[in-house]
Parts: sequence; structure tokens; C-alpha cells
Amino acid sequence: MKHPIVTLLTDFGTRDHYVASMKGVILGINPRCTFVDISHQVGPQDIEEGAFLLASAFSSFPRGTIHLSVVDPGVGGLRRAILAVTSSYYFIGPDNGLFTLALQREEIKRVIVLSNKKCFLPRVSSTFHGRDLFAPVAGHLSLGVKPEAFGDKTDTWVELNLGKPVQKGEELTGQILHIDVFGNLVTNIDRDRFLDFVEDRPFLIRVGSHTIRGLKTGYWEGKRNDLLALIGSGGFLEIAVREGNARKKLKMKKGNPVRVRRVMP
Amino acid sequence: MKHPIVTLLTDFGTRDHYVASMKGVILGINPRCTFVDISHQVGPQDIEEGAFLLASAFSSFPRGTIHLSVVDPGVGGLRRAILAVTSSYYFIGPDNGLFTLALQREEIKRVIVLSNKKCFLPRVSSTFHGRDLFAPVAGHLSLGVKPEAFGDKTDTWVELNLGKPVQKGEELTGQILHIDVFGNLVTNIDRDRFLDFVEDRPFLIRVGSHTIRGLKTGYWEGKRNDLLALIGSGGFLEIAVREGNARKKLKMKKGNPVRVRRVMP
Amino acid sequence: MKHPIVTLLTDFGTRDHYVASMKGVILGINPRCTFVDISHQVGPQDIEEGAFLLASAFSSFPRGTIHLSVVDPGVGGLRRAILAVTSSYYFIGPDNGLFTLALQREEIKRVIVLSNKKCFLPRVSSTFHGRDLFAPVAGHLSLGVKPEAFGDKTDTWVELNLGKPVQKGEELTGQILHIDVFGNLVTNIDRDRFLDFVEDRPFLIRVGSHTIRGLKTGYWEGKRNDLLALIGSGGFLEIAVREGNARKKLKMKKGNPVRVRRVMP
Repeated sequence: MKHPIVTLLTDFGTRDHYVASMKGVILGINPRCTFVDISHQVGPQDIEEGAFLLASAFSSFPRGTIHLSVVDPGVGGLRRAILAVTSSYYFIGPDNGLFTLALQREEIKRVIVLSNKKCFLPRVSSTFHGRDLFAPVAGHLSLGVKPEAFGDKTDTWVELNLGKPVQKGEELTGQILHIDVFGNLVTNIDRDRFLDFVEDRPFLIRVGSHTIRGLKTGYWEGKRNDLLALIGSGGFLEIAVREGNARKKLKMKKGNPVRVRRVMP
Repeated sequence: MKHPIVTLLTDFGTRDHYVASMKGVILGINPRCTFVDISHQVGPQDIEEGAFLLASAFSSFPRGTIHLSVVDPGVGGLRRAILAVTSSYYFIGPDNGLFTLALQREEIKRVIVLSNKKCFLPRVSSTFHGRDLFAPVAGHLSLGVKPEAFGDKTDTWVELNLGKPVQKGEELTGQILHIDVFGNLVTNIDRDRFLDFVEDRPFLIRVGSHTIRGLKTGYWEGKRNDLLALIGSGGFLEIAVREGNARKKLKMKKGNPVRVRRVMP
Repeated sequence: MKHPIVTLLTDFGTRDHYVASMKGVILGINPRCTFVDISHQVGPQDIEEGAFLLASAFSSFPRGTIHLSVVDPGVGGLRRAILAVTSSYYFIGPDNGLFTLALQREEIKRVIVLSNKKCFLPRVSSTFHGRDLFAPVAGHLSLGVKPEAFGDKTDTWVELNLGKPVQKGEELTGQILHIDVFGNLVTNIDRDRFLDFVEDRPFLIRVGSHTIRGLKTGYWEGKRNDLLALIGSGGFLEIAVREGNARKKLKMKKGNPVRVRRVMP
């Protein structure tokens, strides 16, 4: 790769040295890499939030970007380590569902189980695969090593359930996947799923005891302090308050349901 | 540009994916860019704090650096998007006063209203101009596209009032613009304004019920726990406590006044 | 250097502009530098924590990496500024013990006292040597300037005590140096010191009122909520709780003792 880009997403925080150690290992293999941090403040071991943040960011990057994501409660245990190759990107990380939402939006070419120890650090700890296993694979991949060199193909991988809102008759029920820094409530209902469901029928959106009619296109529509729904910048249905904080106003938290109901015209 | 540098300053925080999305878009246009984050922890929609942090950092960068700043409560509304070209730098962001303090220290060459849609992402959301509009402009600019290509020149732009302390007779009144991680109180009185005002006369500085005589040059002058005033590293008058925390000691917050009074020799 | 890498470790936080200012200065001297942030959330003026984080990360980087570390309560005072050259790395920062743990693991070639003003910014403030003194030295060094050009050699430098656990008969007493984002308690007893002490004898580890038998190799050994000890990824003895938070479970804080006792087989 001429200008290799590696994104990093972890639950390691930015206070400890963990992220720097991963970058150091990658630069030792390929000093030409450009890094972009997606987030290191995923809640500890919160695979769902990691999946959401990755899905929101990955497609803004140029083709060939290597997305290295480590939210890994099972490190050192039996979970597999994988490299997923899609028509545009590479995803490296634990096989625990972290890539669920991103892969749903991509054309998957193949998924490789990382097993070739020659591509890892000489001594792989049981505590820090981010540095000892995933980082070196990202480094070698960025040098042009073929995905097949890292291990065998697999036809199965772990998928989280969260990617799938549930439809029952005239109602589609999703849940709050992430609450952003502005207090906007981001759901697991993505644009395509939403449009497929409502088609061109009128609809109501229910969250807590509140009901919202229709979609806005921006945070500035409606009146100050009005609740509004829109398709957010990551491509998911989102609940916001004009010039306010929806999390505080609605007292909502992650996992709470959001319902879309088709109504008579 | 041979080694294009893009700084980023936002109120997006580092937990969400927003900053990464902006960087991804820029790298898709110019993979050679080097990024430096100035701060992403500007208080939500706090244009004044953003203006201060940008003013404190921008001039440490080499000529030609692109400063991309997005604290943008009016996103999707009527506020304009601008590119300000000075004799040394480029500033890209919303026209809401965010560049007030930086531009006061620069020789402005021209200000362009960003309107050429060919330089934006194909679909510009109403919620995330940082990614869809400002980032692509930064990317194209870093490739050498001329500022004029992005839109028409303008002779007016929004300026905040905060840049201007108020003089009344023998007293110059500024306010606390920012409190740093060490508890130092940074005011909106910059070095030139301060020196012009006091010339070579003696002066007192009043903050809350405390009075400080004269300026120090470093945090280590005076006695432990003494209040002191100095011109801080960003070029603004600053109140500190030797080996202590001025915010806690004085119970001050942003916006509180700081007065400089000229006295008889 | 073909691909110069500069790491940064400070107590400046990420909200203020301080770190960006340092990077701007370095890029003004050498725009080809790649930066990696180790941490900027070292506790204010906590040299010991800085020493620990640097020691945990530095050796993951390729040979020739410049480690620029500024936790500097004595800025503007009498403390010296140094460049330590080891067989693999460069360390730049205040001479206050910040490099103690890293240098214990390296072969030191020479230590230079930074005094050549031509290598600093034209005006060195008393408040921000990170930007005005240390950053320019890092920039020039990355361009290939010889260490000797920055000042004279010295044979003495400040060392912290914390690097040295205390042995009394059959007991080795260390202390908690750092508590990571997962609540793991990292001690100042490093792998070599630990192995030298226990040799192949059985041992107990005491922390608070708890006793742990033997070492695990990963966080997933033992039972859920069990206390365990292991050599962490930074090479230090560490106390953890399987799928839990040792800090909360044991109510421990930095500085608390951890004892290793050799027992009869």
C-alpha cells in the first residue's frame, strides 16, 4: 500500500499506554502507516458500543484502510482472532461480534482466522493481543502481505443480535445503541431498514412516553426544545432535542427501546 | 503542499466517531496529510473557548498549516461556512466568530464563503458539516486547490466581542476565557493589549477579592501558594498559584472579571 | 532519520492546546515526523506515574524512536533538561527522574544536558519548556543533529526511588505504581526482579488483607471474581480480578504496598 491507513478502536482509554504500544509495534513493522483513532473510550468490554462506533466511521475512509478494533473481554481465552476482507476494507480484531454492524453494510470477500504465528510478535502474552497479535497482523497487511498468509478461511463468525430491530405487524422496535456527547440517542435502526419499513406511509416514533411525528433532516428544524427524529450522520435513526440534550430530557439510557409505528394515512 | 498539515479543533469529544470521520474524508482526498488535534474537548457549542484554544495554538505551526475548526451550534442553519486566508495560515470552519482571536493576530489576505458544491461530499447532511463540507475543503486545499475555487470573496465575517477587554479611565477589565488543566485562569487580555495599557506604570491586578502586584515571568517565582500573574504561554494574561490551583483557591469560573488598574508610582 | 517517530507523554491533558503546540513546533522543524501519544493524562505533576507509563510503552517502538516526555513540576526553576541516549532510543525531558524506570531497562550510551540555545525556540518562556525547549530539540534530533550538539555530557542524573522494591529476608515489598482503566493494580516489581527473587520457590502475594498463591498467565484463568496475580503486558507484577475490577474489590490506591513472600515448599 502506498499510503497505508490504520484506524484504531478500543476500550483501552487514553490514560494508559496500551494504544501507544499497539502503534509502536505497527510502526516497527511499517513506519509509513498513518493512524487515525476512532475511539478508545468504548465502555469497558462493551462490544455493542464498539460495533456501533466502528459502523459509524469506517466508510468515511478510503478504500484499503485497515480497521483494527480491539474490544476483547475474551482475550487469552478461546475466542478466535479474525481478519475480514470486504470489497473496500480490512477488519482485524477478535471474533466476538465487534464487526457485526460494519460487515452488514459491506460485501464480504473472505474471513480469515489468524493463526500464523510468524505474523505475531515472537512472544504473545495472554493479556494483550492488541499489541502482540492484532497490531503485527495490521503492520504486515499494510506492507502488502496477502490475507491468506495469516491463516485459513472460515465460513462462520460471531454476529451480535443488536444489528436487527424486530418487526411485529405495524411496529418496528429497535433500541438505543449509543448516546453521543451532545445527548443524541442513536438507535440500531439504520436508514435502509427504516425506509424499507415505512415505505411512503405516515409513521409515529415512540421513545419513553413521548411520540414524534415524521423525520427532520437537521437539528435546526422545529422549535427550540422540541423533540425530533432524523437519520443521523452515521446512518442510524436518531432522537434529538433542538438546542438541547435528549438523554437528559427523556432520561433515557442505552438499551432502551425506540418504536416506529406505521399509521393510517 | 509537500507536507500538508491539518489541525483539528472541535467540541465533538473523543468518545464518539465524529473526529475520525472527518479525518477519513480528508485522507480519502489527500492521503499525505498529517493531522494534529488541538482539542476536541471544547465545551459543547462553546465558541469562545474554541476561539481561545485556537488562538493559543495556531502560531506554533509552520506556514501553510490548515486549521480546521468546528464548534458549530448553527450547523444546518443559516450561518455561512468560510475559509480565511492569512499571510501564514488557512482557517476553515463556520462563520460564527470562532476565528476572532486568531485573526486578530494575523494579517488577513482574504475570506472566502464556501459555496462550491463540487468541493463538498456528494451528499451534504444537515447535521455534520465537519465531515461533509469542511473536511473535503481542507482535503482539496491541501492538494493545492486555490482558495478562490471554493467560493466568492467576502468583506465581512462574524466577530465575537470577547476579544476586546474594556478600558475605563485607569482600569482595563477583561474576563476569564479559559481555565486550564492545572487550574490556571487565562484571561482575554493579550500581551500587546496589556503592555499598551500599562506602559511602564505600576499596576495592580484584581481578581475576586484578591489583589496581585506586578507580573512574574514563571510559575516558580514568589512563595509557595502565592497568587501570581504572568503572560502565559498562549500570550494572554494569566492568574496562577505557585504549586497550587488558582481555580480552586479563588473559586473562579469562566466569564468572571479580571481587572488591571494603573496606580500612582 | 528516514521515518522519524516521536512519542509524547505529558500531564497536559487533552483539553488544552499544550500538546498541539509542541507538535506544531516539531513539525515546523521537521514536517516528516510521525507522532504517537503515549499518554497526556498522567496525574498533574505525577512523575512516578509518568515514569511507569513510559517504561511500559517505550520498548514497543522501533529503534531510533525519540521519546519526548514532559511531566515537569520544576519548569522554569533549577532542574536541568536532558537527552538520554541508549543503545536503542532517545529520551528527552526534564531531569527529575521521569526516565528512571525506562533507563533501568536500557543500555545507556550517554546523557547530555540540554544547553545549546541555538537548538531552542528564539524566546524560551519560563512556563512552557515542552514547546520552547524540548520540542525543538526533538525536532532537530529527528533531522539527524548529533546529540553532542545540544550540550555537554553528564555522568549524573536524577533517579526516583520507586524503581526499587525492598527485600527483607524472605519478603519483597513493592508498591502500586499505577491503576489502569480496567482497575488492574500494577506494581513496581518488574519481571526480572520478581523472578530473581522467587527463583523456583513457592510464594504468596499479599495485597491488603488478601493473599494470592502463584502466578497466572492471563486474566481468564481461575474463577470469575477470583483475585489473581500475573506479569502484566508492561512487564510488571500486576493484581487483577477475573472479569472484575481489582481497584474496587480491594479498595486499593496508588502507593499501597504489595508483598511477595517466599514460603517453604
